[in-house]
Amino acid sequence: MTSLSRDFPLHTVNGIRLGATKAHLRYSNRLDLVVIEIAEGANTAALFTQNAFCAAPVVVAKRHLQQASPRYLLINTGFANAGLGQRGIQDTQLCCEALAKLAHVSTHSILPFSTGVIGEYLPVDKILKGLPDALSDLNEAHWQKGAQGILTTDTHPKGACVQFQYENKWTTLTGIAKGSGMICPNLATLLVFLATDLPIRPTILNDCLQEAARESFNAITIDGDTSTNDACVLIATGQLQVDALQKFDDKGTLLFRTELKKICRSLAEQLVQDGEGATKFIRIRITHGAHIEECRQVAYRIAHSPLVKTAFFASDPNWGRILAAIGASGLPAFDISRVHVWLNHLKIVEGGARSSAYQEAQGREVMQNKAIEIRVALGRGNAEHTVLTSDLSEEYIKINGAYRS
Amino acid sequence: MTSLSRDFPLHTVNGIRLGATKAHLRYSNRLDLVVIEIAEGANTAALFTQNAFCAAPVVVAKRHLQQASPRYLLINTGFANAGLGQRGIQDTQLCCEALAKLAHVSTHSILPFSTGVIGEYLPVDKILKGLPDALSDLNEAHWQKGAQGILTTDTHPKGACVQFQYENKWTTLTGIAKGSGMICPNLATLLVFLATDLPIRPTILNDCLQEAARESFNAITIDGDTSTNDACVLIATGQLQVDALQKFDDKGTLLFRTELKKICRSLAEQLVQDGEGATKFIRIRITHGAHIEECRQVAYRIAHSPLVKTAFFASDPNWGRILAAIGASGLPAFDISRVHVWLNHLKIVEGGARSSAYQEAQGREVMQNKAIEIRVALGRGNAEHTVLTSDLSEEYIKINGAYRS
Repeated sequence: MTSLSRDFPLHTVNGIRLGATKAHLRYSNRLDLVVIEIAEGANTAALFTQNAFCAAPVVVAKRHLQQASPRYLLINTGFANAGLGQRGIQDTQLCCEALAKLAHVSTHSILPFSTGVIGEYLPVDKILKGLPDALSDLNEAHWQKGAQGILTTDTHPKGACVQFQYENKWTTLTGIAKGSGMICPNLATLLVFLATDLPIRPTILNDCLQEAARESFNAITIDGDTSTNDACVLIATGQLQVDALQKFDDKGTLLFRTELKKICRSLAEQLVQDGEGATKFIRIRITHGAHIEECRQVAYRIAHSPLVKTAFFASDPNWGRILAAIGASGLPAFDISRVHVWLNHLKIVEGGARSSAYQEAQGREVMQNKAIEIRVALGRGNAEHTVLTSDLSEEYIKINGAYRS
Repeated sequence: MTSLSRDFPLHTVNGIRLGATKAHLRYSNRLDLVVIEIAEGANTAALFTQNAFCAAPVVVAKRHLQQASPRYLLINTGFANAGLGQRGIQDTQLCCEALAKLAHVSTHSILPFSTGVIGEYLPVDKILKGLPDALSDLNEAHWQKGAQGILTTDTHPKGACVQFQYENKWTTLTGIAKGSGMICPNLATLLVFLATDLPIRPTILNDCLQEAARESFNAITIDGDTSTNDACVLIATGQLQVDALQKFDDKGTLLFRTELKKICRSLAEQLVQDGEGATKFIRIRITHGAHIEECRQVAYRIAHSPLVKTAFFASDPNWGRILAAIGASGLPAFDISRVHVWLNHLKIVEGGARSSAYQEAQGREVMQNKAIEIRVALGRGNAEHTVLTSDLSEEYIKINGAYRS
């Protein structure tokens, strides 16, 4: 009954149209301005960055979300419009006002999103000039074009969609995302736009998004440790003629939650696989922790270690670096003699020390894989948590050293 | 009265002799085994890694320090002897026993130190074979040779010494260190050996070392977030015929504390400047915090951001990445409108937003420097803290990808 696909084209969602244009914001000849139109009557939930220096569009989007039901999402790349104080807010508002006027809706029903370089003023004139083109491009079938138009250093667009039956009718859930910089994800902007034609009550919609993000986008970024511009939006257009999802634990909602989690995980994996300069896809699974928080703590300590990341880039089974990262994660009363570590199915560490059966040649073989799971059993309880990351290559330095030049 | 020098030769310290040899542990034709002899009657203080997976030599050194006054330090490179359980402990003990026998002292008076690759068994035979050579090389004048013999990926030896007058007599304080990997210092082994001929009571000696480390070596590594093998040793041989330093706040102790801090800061700076692949020396100074802890928190968030580090490598004044890192540091009730940021003397951010006077060309000019200070005023109080780091270059990936091959 479910058809999950990472391949384009993405299924249309009744009540959603997307338009994209080349507004020549930072680069010429690339799609860099996207408008997503939401039909009247939809509900929209959104999660935003916890960064104290959140960008002007985040401030404005949060404010607008309090005041009206969103009718248009306006996304520009090239400029983050962050770190610019009152001027940044004004620039974002000018763009929202212009779109509102063209689309004949209230300014409050526009949610703005930006991604790009921090600290440079938004090219408002170019955005205003591009808006009519973006609007005239609006089309239900333009999900892929939208996915293309929100990219920055990503090497390819990211999308996922699923169709499943609810009350004997087929419903659709489609999402697009941009990210990159996932090698150390704490400062790369993550933008995610998801939509379904199901009718879903606002509070339920919000709970579903929170839950799905926790196991996907928040497993590749640290809570409260996000870029200035991160945002994740879930729209329920309600165009499918069925009863609205009313309760979090209803059978229908459970079904939707499952599908939403799948889509979000797929998008999260695509984001990591397209990490800047990434050559390896690394899944870090921490099991048998006392609680999820300490599993996260250990997982991120490994995921953020440049020494671990460079070893993976070099396909070098230098597992001591993994052990050192685990030891540095600061768990209280940590009995290392209960720790076991695997690389895929190969046991590396047994009872806190090099496994007696382990041979370097086996390690070298495992490290040849493109996708590798580091599994760590802590021996402290039953909690577990998984985090996705990538390796650290010379290419990463090239991309991020050259990003503005 | 003070002559601080980073240049070799290093002054001798009465009561200390050093010997180094090529034991062919990992590489042939390099000094890799060092013995430091301490005359009887000396006091020794030591700080060790907080890493839960601390190496076998750390376990043994801590144990020995409880049982006897140290007479010999035994340092090998190439092998960290970490992650190897009981076998690792036994190997370290074998080495200590052999040295004790050759030197006619108790095994407990030997402190072992190792640095190198984790998870490979210590080449005990080669170490035992090298010990007689190292002992016959013992000489008061071999501080520079010792500094050379403890290096791993460091590109040059690190040393500092000072002579100052105490009770009208000249006293000496000399130190050597190895580090590297300082770009993200959390997993690079730091070894520091310091000695003075002053007589200093053990508890005072320990307090002096703690204080000096806090402002130097702990300002380039995170507390409790060190490698498996980190150690810092301070020896007071007491060979100078003066009254012993008895109290932490005595005039004489204050003088010693000041000089010790200078030496430790000098060694810490040398360590960062020799960071793996480093091309820039970055001082991150956070002022006007509510307390030191939050200043540290912000400083490390900036210091550990690969995006900030790569921007410095590219000499790109992409200050938005600094702002994003500050915002991501999770300070409670953080009013960003009180934040100011400078690069050296150039004001970049004023009241939480791009300074109106700031011009990109000025930023580019500052970024050309080899040594750059990022200063952040938080507007929350009077605490401040400074952290040293370096940039992130392609060379770093090369070094750490190839380290074991």
